[in-house]
Amino acid sequence: MASESIGVAVIGAGMAGRAHLGGYRTASTLYDAGLPEVRLVAVADTHEPFAREAARRYGYRRAETDWRAIAEADDVDAVSVVVANPLHREIVEGLLAAGKHVLCEKPLAPTVADAEAMVKAAEGTGLVAATGFTLRRSPAINGIRQQLGDGGLGRVQHFNGHYWCDYGHNPGAPISWRYRGPLGSGALSDIGSHLVDLGEYFCGPVESVRGAVLSTQVRERPVPLGTAVGHSADVRVSEEREAVENEDIATFTATFASGAVGTFSVSRIACGLANSLGFEVFGEGGAATFDMARPAEFGFADSSLPAATGGYRQVVVGPQHPYVAGGLPMDFPSVGHGQNDFFTWQARAFLEQIAGLDRLPHCASLAEGLHNLRVLDAIVASASADGQAVTVQ
Amino acid sequence: MASESIGVAVIGAGMAGRAHLGGYRTASTLYDAGLPEVRLVAVADTHEPFAREAARRYGYRRAETDWRAIAEADDVDAVSVVVANPLHREIVEGLLAAGKHVLCEKPLAPTVADAEAMVKAAEGTGLVAATGFTLRRSPAINGIRQQLGDGGLGRVQHFNGHYWCDYGHNPGAPISWRYRGPLGSGALSDIGSHLVDLGEYFCGPVESVRGAVLSTQVRERPVPLGTAVGHSADVRVSEEREAVENEDIATFTATFASGAVGTFSVSRIACGLANSLGFEVFGEGGAATFDMARPAEFGFADSSLPAATGGYRQVVVGPQHPYVAGGLPMDFPSVGHGQNDFFTWQARAFLEQIAGLDRLPHCASLAEGLHNLRVLDAIVASASADGQAVTVQ
Amino acid sequence: MASESIGVAVIGAGMAGRAHLGGYRTASTLYDAGLPEVRLVAVADTHEPFAREAARRYGYRRAETDWRAIAEADDVDAVSVVVANPLHREIVEGLLAAGKHVLCEKPLAPTVADAEAMVKAAEGTGLVAATGFTLRRSPAINGIRQQLGDGGLGRVQHFNGHYWCDYGHNPGAPISWRYRGPLGSGALSDIGSHLVDLGEYFCGPVESVRGAVLSTQVRERPVPLGTAVGHSADVRVSEEREAVENEDIATFTATFASGAVGTFSVSRIACGLANSLGFEVFGEGGAATFDMARPAEFGFADSSLPAATGGYRQVVVGPQHPYVAGGLPMDFPSVGHGQNDFFTWQARAFLEQIAGLDRLPHCASLAEGLHNLRVLDAIVASASADGQAVTVQ
Amino acid sequence: MASESIGVAVIGAGMAGRAHLGGYRTASTLYDAGLPEVRLVAVADTHEPFAREAARRYGYRRAETDWRAIAEADDVDAVSVVVANPLHREIVEGLLAAGKHVLCEKPLAPTVADAEAMVKAAEGTGLVAATGFTLRRSPAINGIRQQLGDGGLGRVQHFNGHYWCDYGHNPGAPISWRYRGPLGSGALSDIGSHLVDLGEYFCGPVESVRGAVLSTQVRERPVPLGTAVGHSADVRVSEEREAVENEDIATFTATFASGAVGTFSVSRIACGLANSLGFEVFGEGGAATFDMARPAEFGFADSSLPAATGGYRQVVVGPQHPYVAGGLPMDFPSVGHGQNDFFTWQARAFLEQIAGLDRLPHCASLAEGLHNLRVLDAIVASASADGQAVTVQ
Repeated sequence: MASESIGVAVIGAGMAGRAHLGGYRTASTLYDAGLPEVRLVAVADTHEPFAREAARRYGYRRAETDWRAIAEADDVDAVSVVVANPLHREIVEGLLAAGKHVLCEKPLAPTVADAEAMVKAAEGTGLVAATGFTLRRSPAINGIRQQLGDGGLGRVQHFNGHYWCDYGHNPGAPISWRYRGPLGSGALSDIGSHLVDLGEYFCGPVESVRGAVLSTQVRERPVPLGTAVGHSADVRVSEEREAVENEDIATFTATFASGAVGTFSVSRIACGLANSLGFEVFGEGGAATFDMARPAEFGFADSSLPAATGGYRQVVVGPQHPYVAGGLPMDFPSVGHGQNDFFTWQARAFLEQIAGLDRLPHCASLAEGLHNLRVLDAIVASASADGQAVTVQ
Repeated sequence: MASESIGVAVIGAGMAGRAHLGGYRTASTLYDAGLPEVRLVAVADTHEPFAREAARRYGYRRAETDWRAIAEADDVDAVSVVVANPLHREIVEGLLAAGKHVLCEKPLAPTVADAEAMVKAAEGTGLVAATGFTLRRSPAINGIRQQLGDGGLGRVQHFNGHYWCDYGHNPGAPISWRYRGPLGSGALSDIGSHLVDLGEYFCGPVESVRGAVLSTQVRERPVPLGTAVGHSADVRVSEEREAVENEDIATFTATFASGAVGTFSVSRIACGLANSLGFEVFGEGGAATFDMARPAEFGFADSSLPAATGGYRQVVVGPQHPYVAGGLPMDFPSVGHGQNDFFTWQARAFLEQIAGLDRLPHCASLAEGLHNLRVLDAIVASASADGQAVTVQ
Repeated sequence: MASESIGVAVIGAGMAGRAHLGGYRTASTLYDAGLPEVRLVAVADTHEPFAREAARRYGYRRAETDWRAIAEADDVDAVSVVVANPLHREIVEGLLAAGKHVLCEKPLAPTVADAEAMVKAAEGTGLVAATGFTLRRSPAINGIRQQLGDGGLGRVQHFNGHYWCDYGHNPGAPISWRYRGPLGSGALSDIGSHLVDLGEYFCGPVESVRGAVLSTQVRERPVPLGTAVGHSADVRVSEEREAVENEDIATFTATFASGAVGTFSVSRIACGLANSLGFEVFGEGGAATFDMARPAEFGFADSSLPAATGGYRQVVVGPQHPYVAGGLPMDFPSVGHGQNDFFTWQARAFLEQIAGLDRLPHCASLAEGLHNLRVLDAIVASASADGQAVTVQ
Repeated sequence: MASESIGVAVIGAGMAGRAHLGGYRTASTLYDAGLPEVRLVAVADTHEPFAREAARRYGYRRAETDWRAIAEADDVDAVSVVVANPLHREIVEGLLAAGKHVLCEKPLAPTVADAEAMVKAAEGTGLVAATGFTLRRSPAINGIRQQLGDGGLGRVQHFNGHYWCDYGHNPGAPISWRYRGPLGSGALSDIGSHLVDLGEYFCGPVESVRGAVLSTQVRERPVPLGTAVGHSADVRVSEEREAVENEDIATFTATFASGAVGTFSVSRIACGLANSLGFEVFGEGGAATFDMARPAEFGFADSSLPAATGGYRQVVVGPQHPYVAGGLPMDFPSVGHGQNDFFTWQARAFLEQIAGLDRLPHCASLAEGLHNLRVLDAIVASASADGQAVTVQ
């Protein structure tokens, strides 16, 4: 890497790809510490107009249609990989071989074996090889994490979390790639993987999972007349119907190596909830809660207050919490932020890590992304084994 | 039963016993329909001063120290049994044999065998033999239940619930009977039984449970110098410590015969949450949420609203919901109510059932109380079998 | 008064009258301290069936149709007056002359002169002569009040409150007595009087009001075909319309003698809000908030917490707050309560005051009820004088 | 203006200036419609290091220390003015004379006369001359505004709003320019001006204000040992104290030309509330609420729902609301956003307006900024005239 500047590129110009593109664009405007200059170099997408339009909008110099052009580019140092996950392995291996720092979207790969290969490819390279668990970039989630250990939460005893979306609630929404593939590749992989990562963010590695139920409630869906894009249900459909192959709901319990207990509840058919992530962390010293509907706040309780005026408090993330002070231009408490800002902070953390800085917490490694997949695999195995406990390898 | 009046008695004058005593006292003031006269006859408690004081405060004619005096009393028609659950079987059998209608607190008995005997004792008597699942008396919970079936929720797909209390959070709180007894007799039996009942209230019978974790996080507690009463932690303790025998946390998943999926999370060590019950009911047609912190409201979503002004609505239980109109004196929407009112509505429902009326939903039967125990047993079995699915008999 | 017992009666058997009837019935079941025996003696209502039915439901010995029968009854010691306020003066004067303790509903009278006469009538009698500001009986509101002075709030700097109802929102709701009478007799008198009382409960006497706007937004309403009862809009109406004479909205600012500032916002046409009362109390030391939608909680902030985990806390009223411990049977934190319980606590406080006890805060005196009317008068005067400040006498 | 591109500059590199700088940087990445290329040209600040650092961070070509350099620059078409408001007039007049489009921060000027001159300067130029009422850019606030008129709210009857901050709550916070200047230049000018603008955004022009109280509760503050920057209270102070000259609290009522009524409550000493803006809009057809603590949502009620499942709904701003769809990269409902995004949308709207596009609502004009000042002047006049109504000219 040229220490004077970092050239960045993004492979994949869909919605999440654009979030990465915007993230790098804004990342260099945060804080005043000495991040090297960030050059916005290239966007790659197999669909050329997408690549070109994204490059134009986000101010990147070049549009490419083949990821190899990125791997081969001398002016690129750091690359986000934001394409369908069956493609991750080849691209990440190629980029690492070419000496690029990599930030790969989750889930890392369709199989544990693929992810193991990716981790292996990164070993010994000295490159930053990261997994994009964006939700870890929530200032509120970080505010809670600061309370672990010697903080107010003490040893965690119980993690309870849900991730509920409604994109599949309408049974008339057309069949698409989301509804195809084996059990475990539905709601569990799409959104449950985030929740598993957060559980491990607070409690350390999952030791075993049990009681997994992967349930397909909407058993068939209409075949679209055109191509369904994104989560959209606005597509005209035919009278024909196809079977849904993977799960609408995933729920399971877990034990963590630390001794904590976990309860997980995931659904893509939760009526009225576009994007509802929430969890509780109960510890020996206190408890904290998070709800994505109030992204700039978290709940907190401990035993420090007199009973007459004590209670759960709503902590507004302000300058005392990581990320906020000196970050976005308006940085006083309660101006708020959204999930797009998570991508900005993620980009910033990746860039800082490349530059050897550590203002922000480091990105999850590929190894953490691999472990996440191992937990998902164990969940599928538990579901197949009548709920029996399956140890995570 | 004398059709002109109903004589009531309560066995047990502790906190919950007083709630029953108050419930009968107020029940007859609700609504204007033709409930027979309610006579407040007797209170029994082995501790005589408790019985006498309770009779005085709640206006009952007699105080007794032996439940048999209630069973033998000609002027008593209906009896609440609110004592430690190992005593339930003998008392309920005795009362039924004496021709009394019985409302027995949950959990019905320490063992399924005891509860089976109780159900058998009630068969063919023509008496009302009910289990006190008080939470079913929440107007908001009933407002949600009205939406089942042809209502807005449609077929239920997923029930997700928690019941979290903090009475055991402080590890310095003294050991007591609550912390003794086998796995399953801790948080699961105390508060989890309510949550299981609510799951079945919305989804019908649980078919199998799996993934059960019964976890004791606070492994020992100090021995009190005096006698610990109620949930109190205000007792002086010695330096000696005793092992906690049963679970602080109980979590598991379930499948219902209807095809719905369940996620359950129960704890008695949830810092800062004195009494937090909440659940979500996700159905084909819509979804509903309940949180005990807002007892007079429930959340509701369906697909009937335009996107620009649609969203989860906070439904304030008003005259359109069961229980409210014509009940408590101030009966317009949003005057609110608390859990003590649940006991009043429960008493009213029990009395109406005895009188052959049915304005309010009937009480849970002893058979439902028995089924609840069978589910709890299956949960314990699943926990012992490494989380494997256990079918509820 | 016979010191061994207190005989109670209620004049007026409408909704609020029933709330008083139920209040006395339950009041004696609270707490274990030595309240004399409470005898439920009589209900009076000019509509005889109402009186009789109320006596039956709430367990009072006699039904009367003339309040004088109450005044003359030797077995009655304490009387609630819950009739239309033009009748208050004559009845209260008569009761006081007959040596009865009186609890009169607010607003005390249609004119300040009437209320002055009532206060005068009570002077020197040694009787308890109280005004029924029921909202003062909210445990949460009391929990806030405990924080005044040396408590966490310190000197109050600003009181901001609203009371919004929707009973008049539908312009098709029929004309009734509520919509007739001079400006000031509409939303201001009906619900604004409560808010003014709460302002004074926290800040002491209002010194002057200013900027009053009394606005009639729904200028005419249909004439009902039958008689409109209560707030109901379910009545069939004719094509004829009549002018609404008094205000739908009342808003004004105030200064308190203490130096605090007040903002008041009152409406009876607030769509979707059946009964929304809320306020903020900002003090030198901290701030508190209340919202009737969460009746068993209040918000509280001060500067005592570290920024990383500090914030507004939601204080659940528990045993540490007045009213709760030892009161309703279930008395642990967060079981909740509703406005009907306010009437029970009010009845209890009135009875305790008669008995010379003072566990609960005393009732507002008639003099406080008079002062409330003087503030309302000043508001009307300010509205007539183009908003100019009017000093409260 | 060169129709192929727009060159932008920002005068003032403080916190709000940086928000403008970032806004322009991101604005061009939103939506795919044909905005001309946006060139980030220059930052001016009298403190040269500030200007240079801001230019570096936000990617602007030049740093200047004199605004005249911006006015004279051929490659600048559009300029944000984000300096102390006594400097606004001269700069805006100069920029307009030089043919630049101008976006000036609010409050427009220290006096109405200055603002009148500014409006005059813009007349006939054909340039976009806008006032920066950033809060109008909230998607939720826009979602509410869409419901005016034929929408669900119908004619507005009552606007009730508050803006409460706590930056002055600590009486030990040092004196600064914020606390100096005549009554009206304190909380009213700083934050009240936003609330007045929002009132007019929903109800049209204020006709008269009344009952204004401008109250200084913290009468003196310590003199800092150094220079206080921003809102900070972290500065060491001397023992010396100086009088606070302007108001901590501003409250008043208003009538709008439309017939609606207004209640306004503003404070800079509201303990625990860093930045609490909230309001209710009550209309003939429905009602809406907004609370900055939940920036991506608004409350809404109308009469369209059955009573059993109806209630206030929490509307999450999604693609159906202005601003959201196609804007920030992640654009599905509930990803959320913060106040920094308001600046981006404001910049975008200003640029679109210059380009003759109108996807987003236009910026407030200088004339609207002038009217805002006239309302503030009337409020001050009402406060001086004992609360009497003052007509806004």
